[in-house]
Amino acid sequence: SNMIKVAVVGGEGIGPEVTAQSRRILDWFAAKRGVPMTLREAQYGLIPYLATGRVLPEDTAEAMDEADAILWGATGGPETKEVPAAARKAGSLLGLRSKYDLYANLRPIVANPALSASAPLKPEVLDGVDFVIIRELTSGIYFGEPRGIETLPDGQRRGFNTEQYTTNQIRRVARSAFELARTRRNKVCSVDKANVLETSVVWREEVTALHKEEFSDVELSHLYVDNAAMQIVREPRQFDVMVTGNIFGDILSDCAAMASGSLGMLPSASLGPVDRYGRRKALYEPVHGSAPDIAGKGIANPLGSILSVAMLLRLTLNRPADADLLEKAVQTALASGARTVDIAEAGAKKLSTTEMGDAVLNAL
Amino acid sequence: SNMIKVAVVGGEGIGPEVTAQSRRILDWFAAKRGVPMTLREAQYGLIPYLATGRVLPEDTAEAMDEADAILWGATGGPETKEVPAAARKAGSLLGLRSKYDLYANLRPIVANPALSASAPLKPEVLDGVDFVIIRELTSGIYFGEPRGIETLPDGQRRGFNTEQYTTNQIRRVARSAFELARTRRNKVCSVDKANVLETSVVWREEVTALHKEEFSDVELSHLYVDNAAMQIVREPRQFDVMVTGNIFGDILSDCAAMASGSLGMLPSASLGPVDRYGRRKALYEPVHGSAPDIAGKGIANPLGSILSVAMLLRLTLNRPADADLLEKAVQTALASGARTVDIAEAGAKKLSTTEMGDAVLNAL
Ligand SMILES: CC(C)[C@H](C(=O)O)[C@@H](O)C(=O)O
Ligand SMILES: CC(C)[C@H](C(=O)O)[C@@H](O)C(=O)O
Repeated sequence: SNMIKVAVVGGEGIGPEVTAQSRRILDWFAAKRGVPMTLREAQYGLIPYLATGRVLPEDTAEAMDEADAILWGATGGPETKEVPAAARKAGSLLGLRSKYDLYANLRPIVANPALSASAPLKPEVLDGVDFVIIRELTSGIYFGEPRGIETLPDGQRRGFNTEQYTTNQIRRVARSAFELARTRRNKVCSVDKANVLETSVVWREEVTALHKEEFSDVELSHLYVDNAAMQIVREPRQFDVMVTGNIFGDILSDCAAMASGSLGMLPSASLGPVDRYGRRKALYEPVHGSAPDIAGKGIANPLGSILSVAMLLRLTLNRPADADLLEKAVQTALASGARTVDIAEAGAKKLSTTEMGDAVLNAL
Repeated sequence: SNMIKVAVVGGEGIGPEVTAQSRRILDWFAAKRGVPMTLREAQYGLIPYLATGRVLPEDTAEAMDEADAILWGATGGPETKEVPAAARKAGSLLGLRSKYDLYANLRPIVANPALSASAPLKPEVLDGVDFVIIRELTSGIYFGEPRGIETLPDGQRRGFNTEQYTTNQIRRVARSAFELARTRRNKVCSVDKANVLETSVVWREEVTALHKEEFSDVELSHLYVDNAAMQIVREPRQFDVMVTGNIFGDILSDCAAMASGSLGMLPSASLGPVDRYGRRKALYEPVHGSAPDIAGKGIANPLGSILSVAMLLRLTLNRPADADLLEKAVQTALASGARTVDIAEAGAKKLSTTEMGDAVLNAL
């Protein structure tokens, strides 16, 4: 059939709360716009662990295996103390990224004029910010071997990890960046630490070679990661597409969160390789985590998750008009003053998670 | 004798220009305040390379070896193309950090109200920012072995580096942080990525153990590095002393530069172990680099270097009153409108490097 399969996994902390609102949005697009998809909800975390001994039970693994797209909430938080580390590890988000080879993590950073009152950056710095960080997600120091903790002959402990990148790992994510840039303002900035790390020397050389071979029409620049962190705060408007490795992308995208107004607003898509049928497995999730301090209170901002649905509509379902519609509805809701606590200026009325979901549905 | 020996090494790019102003400041303190020091200037970089085949010639190495404190300018830039990589490496700044075991790199971040017009962060976010990042400087991924570039059986290249920390390496830098916090607002925030890296697991455990054993009067918190990058932009005022590893400190301190107003304003001190005579080798340098794009134009901001002299007065010379005097003179110069190009608001008069040096000397 032509039905696209979507697995909906709220997970832990505020994950289920924000994902419940995204679920309403998905239902709306299925009912009102005839978007051809089947939804399958599945559990993840402490609750299935207590029932089955697994944070990622078989039923959930199956739902995710067969899905074209996974809408993911969040994982982690203090309740994880009740789950032994080994059980955590067996079903971790890092394991899923690796299992499905979701190597290209897209994190759009778009400043929202309506939010500038609560943002730390000046309005004139935020004005016009619109870029995408592509973070390599299945290699680098997150997965490099050897890794571990050892005891030295003198009794000290030593922790060690391996940062590493190969030609193919670099080229495929750089390719994603160049291709995306061609649909935007045609600029790629590659970020590394080639003045210190051999891993980054190979990174820079391979990005440069691929650019020369296939993408010389795209404007390419390189920044050291320390300078990139500063430039993202100093003048975020200068960027179009930024591509970088796993740990640098982790740090820079949180740093860039403030150039969008709030971490709670940020969506992401993690894409795997294109298979022989032209399909591409994808996981969509808000950039924010499980936020244990506010979990269960019904006050989390669902817009990061809802905007992840817009990415799902655009990238997996190939419905750009519907994606635009949803993004505009979010703008409309914000412009009309809808605010959750994380983006509310002093004195503003604060909506609950569900009320923010209502506001977006009303604007649709 | 009681004379403190200071080696003055301008280096490359804007390094010699800004260091020339710091030299004037040092001369002023020697002449007018009787600060007991001898200064020895030494060359570094392309010029000595062309004359001797070494970027760090013997005479400079000797000046630095015998010095109590080194005032360093900058290294690197396009002119380095003329120096082969091996010659660069033989005399690199990383090599010097390692040779003198300068493990504790202090980077104070103090917001300057006078600069808020040209800063990207809102005045109310900058207001009251005053913290110190202590970056571990002689271990971590900068120095870990094995490292290199290899060719795989299938012809791909692979770059690899080793991140690593041992008990003693972690504890000595954490000790510096706790001790510094006791002289300030008594708060330490340790930054790692313990949810992913074994190196960070050991880091967090050792910091926690040392805290419990010897510093339980200090308030200790932990942040993941991605969250820390965001918090530095979102609410930099929350920090007092932040301690972290080499690469995280490199990125976070540039990110924090914008919380001070400008990278050009930031000083640093890199401290070695205390020897049996109670002395502690130190290298003082502005956080900015060689800035090849503006080198030779006489427009670089010398305040990062001049404020490094204030750190030298405080930490090596043990002259806190003189350090305060110099820091106040910088404030006075800024308050009276003295601006180099990097910190000038639109339409403001822009001083040359030398004129900014004059402005500080006039304020002394
Ligand atoms: C939760 C953590 C393992 C994860 C990461 O570091 O990748 C998160 O910070 C993210 O950015 O998705
Ligand atoms: C020039 C470079 C090697 C250096 C570093 O990465 O340590 C610089 O960025 C710094 O922060 O001092």
